[in-house]
Amino acid sequence: MLNKPQSLEKLILGKLRAVLPDKNIVYALSEPKFNGRELSNLKQCLDTAWVSTGGEFIDEFEKKIARFTKIKYVTAVVNGTAALHVALLLINTKPGDEVLIPALTFVATANAISYLGAIPHFIDSEEKTLGVDPEKLKEYLKKNAVIRNNACYNKKTKRPIKALVPMHTFGHPVDLDPLKKICRNYRIILIEDAAEALGSFYKGKHVGHWGKLSILSFNGNKIITTGGGGAILTNNKNLAEQARHITTTAKVDHSWAYYHNRVGFNYRLPNLNAALGSAQIDQLPRFIKNKRKLARRYAQVFKTLKNQVQFFQEAEFSKSNYWLNAILLNPGEAKHRNKILNHTNRNNILTRPAWNLIHTLPMYRKCPRMEDLSCAKSLASRIINLPSSAFLYELSTKHA
Amino acid sequence: MLNKPQSLEKLILGKLRAVLPDKNIVYALSEPKFNGRELSNLKQCLDTAWVSTGGEFIDEFEKKIARFTKIKYVTAVVNGTAALHVALLLINTKPGDEVLIPALTFVATANAISYLGAIPHFIDSEEKTLGVDPEKLKEYLKKNAVIRNNACYNKKTKRPIKALVPMHTFGHPVDLDPLKKICRNYRIILIEDAAEALGSFYKGKHVGHWGKLSILSFNGNKIITTGGGGAILTNNKNLAEQARHITTTAKVDHSWAYYHNRVGFNYRLPNLNAALGSAQIDQLPRFIKNKRKLARRYAQVFKTLKNQVQFFQEAEFSKSNYWLNAILLNPGEAKHRNKILNHTNRNNILTRPAWNLIHTLPMYRKCPRMEDLSCAKSLASRIINLPSSAFLYELSTKHA
Repeated sequence: MLNKPQSLEKLILGKLRAVLPDKNIVYALSEPKFNGRELSNLKQCLDTAWVSTGGEFIDEFEKKIARFTKIKYVTAVVNGTAALHVALLLINTKPGDEVLIPALTFVATANAISYLGAIPHFIDSEEKTLGVDPEKLKEYLKKNAVIRNNACYNKKTKRPIKALVPMHTFGHPVDLDPLKKICRNYRIILIEDAAEALGSFYKGKHVGHWGKLSILSFNGNKIITTGGGGAILTNNKNLAEQARHITTTAKVDHSWAYYHNRVGFNYRLPNLNAALGSAQIDQLPRFIKNKRKLARRYAQVFKTLKNQVQFFQEAEFSKSNYWLNAILLNPGEAKHRNKILNHTNRNNILTRPAWNLIHTLPMYRKCPRMEDLSCAKSLASRIINLPSSAFLYELSTKHA
Repeated sequence: MLNKPQSLEKLILGKLRAVLPDKNIVYALSEPKFNGRELSNLKQCLDTAWVSTGGEFIDEFEKKIARFTKIKYVTAVVNGTAALHVALLLINTKPGDEVLIPALTFVATANAISYLGAIPHFIDSEEKTLGVDPEKLKEYLKKNAVIRNNACYNKKTKRPIKALVPMHTFGHPVDLDPLKKICRNYRIILIEDAAEALGSFYKGKHVGHWGKLSILSFNGNKIITTGGGGAILTNNKNLAEQARHITTTAKVDHSWAYYHNRVGFNYRLPNLNAALGSAQIDQLPRFIKNKRKLARRYAQVFKTLKNQVQFFQEAEFSKSNYWLNAILLNPGEAKHRNKILNHTNRNNILTRPAWNLIHTLPMYRKCPRMEDLSCAKSLASRIINLPSSAFLYELSTKHA
């Protein structure tokens, strides 16, 4: 008697159990761990009464980020959304400007554009990186954009196309060289949304070096966390000074006078949160190593399911932080996605699909976009993210 | 031989030394102290890995604020500026709307209005509260505003006057009853900027009850701190639900799907910061008591200088938290202000003047305003804030 073939959700749960064996543990998608100097740093904040918008941990944390990424100037802020908001402001994004972003991204990328009255313009992704497809973008701009007075315009809407903000999906770098070239040719400013990509390298250099500015997030689910936090990175000193100024209410330095010379924001990362971040970033090399090892284990176990599903792996030009691991269902299996999500979540292995494509959300439905978003649509129907916390590798080897 | 009369800066330093006697201490304006459960709360965040936008301290902190203020619904956010931004958004403030605010306030009050493309409209203060003058406001609206279709318009600019945001200066409540009445008569929405006024009462009720919404700040210099933080308060359930939704990226609840139904903000207070706040608020009654005692001491020592300077005291309808103590130079002595500031700061007693009036800042120079801002101008030239940390009273009695 032949066995009934197992359903895909059971097969996938089986593979996941090989990596995440303990049925009594709820395996979250991405949880932080605090085994370094976190508590002693926090205690120092309390002891010195420096918990707020001034204090030595802010500087220290910024310096450590600069040292790690080799990007010269870092401004720590309250979160990644605020960082992107300010980055777009610094390049002078104005109401009615369009900003190119992938349709497949977290909603914050689009929201930051909206805060300035600007308009997101959605671009397709490529399967190789899960991020903006350079070939498609080039073809699209050739047809739909025109350069006038050294600025790029959307032929159809007549609006300026100010910037491109590619996002390094789940930590995997987009193909930055061709994107940078396209931006140069079309007078479009490149800003990297590296919210998920601290610790990811493209052709040997940390992401963030290609954009005029780039941003990071230190939300609780990121590779290192400050509770809530983010940063604006740039190699341009003038932009860095402006970032500092505008995120601290645009107050002009003075020992007691309150004079502000432009509309500013209360976006500075508090010292309490920077204290956490400064302890976390010391552990970043280990976190990356563990995440990459965990990814290798997933890749290994999913090999035998290759007719149904692929474990997503970095492109040849990347060394990824594997912030959030993902499998891609083969196109024919996409219809099983929700069953798989339900089955794994019910069994304490928390998984999730990619975000709803941004152009399908009610507030962004009328924004301009590529007619052909087929790759983003396909990816959105097939991606399943897997538990990816940095400590899971150590945990799973302990069990093994 | 007669002694040369002492200069005012020396006289004032002398009075301050009677309250702040230790020459080796730098007396800051307002420093926090962490003698409660702060460290154990922070440790709990680390142990449970709940440091970010979810976690039990956020709820706990919100509940404690609601219990203390007796305002039903509290949404904790990243700072007071964000709170005011969202409060204004929730009452549907639109680009081109005018919002009445005192010329004498911290710049954040105006900035939050700007974020929405709305326009601050500056109102004079009264010496009794340091806040918006109800009599003057009434006269001004009588001449300059008109009601059409149940909404208030500025006769001159033709723009809607959407809201009034009085600010409780240094913790001292404005005269809320007449302001509320004016707002009702003119179809203007009242929002209380209580950033400085947690622990302040007007006619026996905590401030924040008069506005449709009100906001608090927990910045490092406030009576209690979360590092950076703020809150939106309201007795209106629907507004509270919207506040919660919009400050958490407008994500629709679902165990794994990412669907957002409007442009939202990443404004939620992280659990790490709420953990600090929850420990701090337990000590609030003591902080208020100490601040009020410190104010009494200042009032006492400055009595004998009453021909030159008045220690600012709460109005008869208020019980103030005395968040930041202030002396008012008599009008004839205003010319000595900078000398006094320099002398006290050089002697480790940190003092500061009031903010530059907002309508004098470059980005707000062209905004509408009362022609007569004489009281605000006078106050801005005469206010000197004094060291006010809650622990100073205990410190000074230890020395005495």
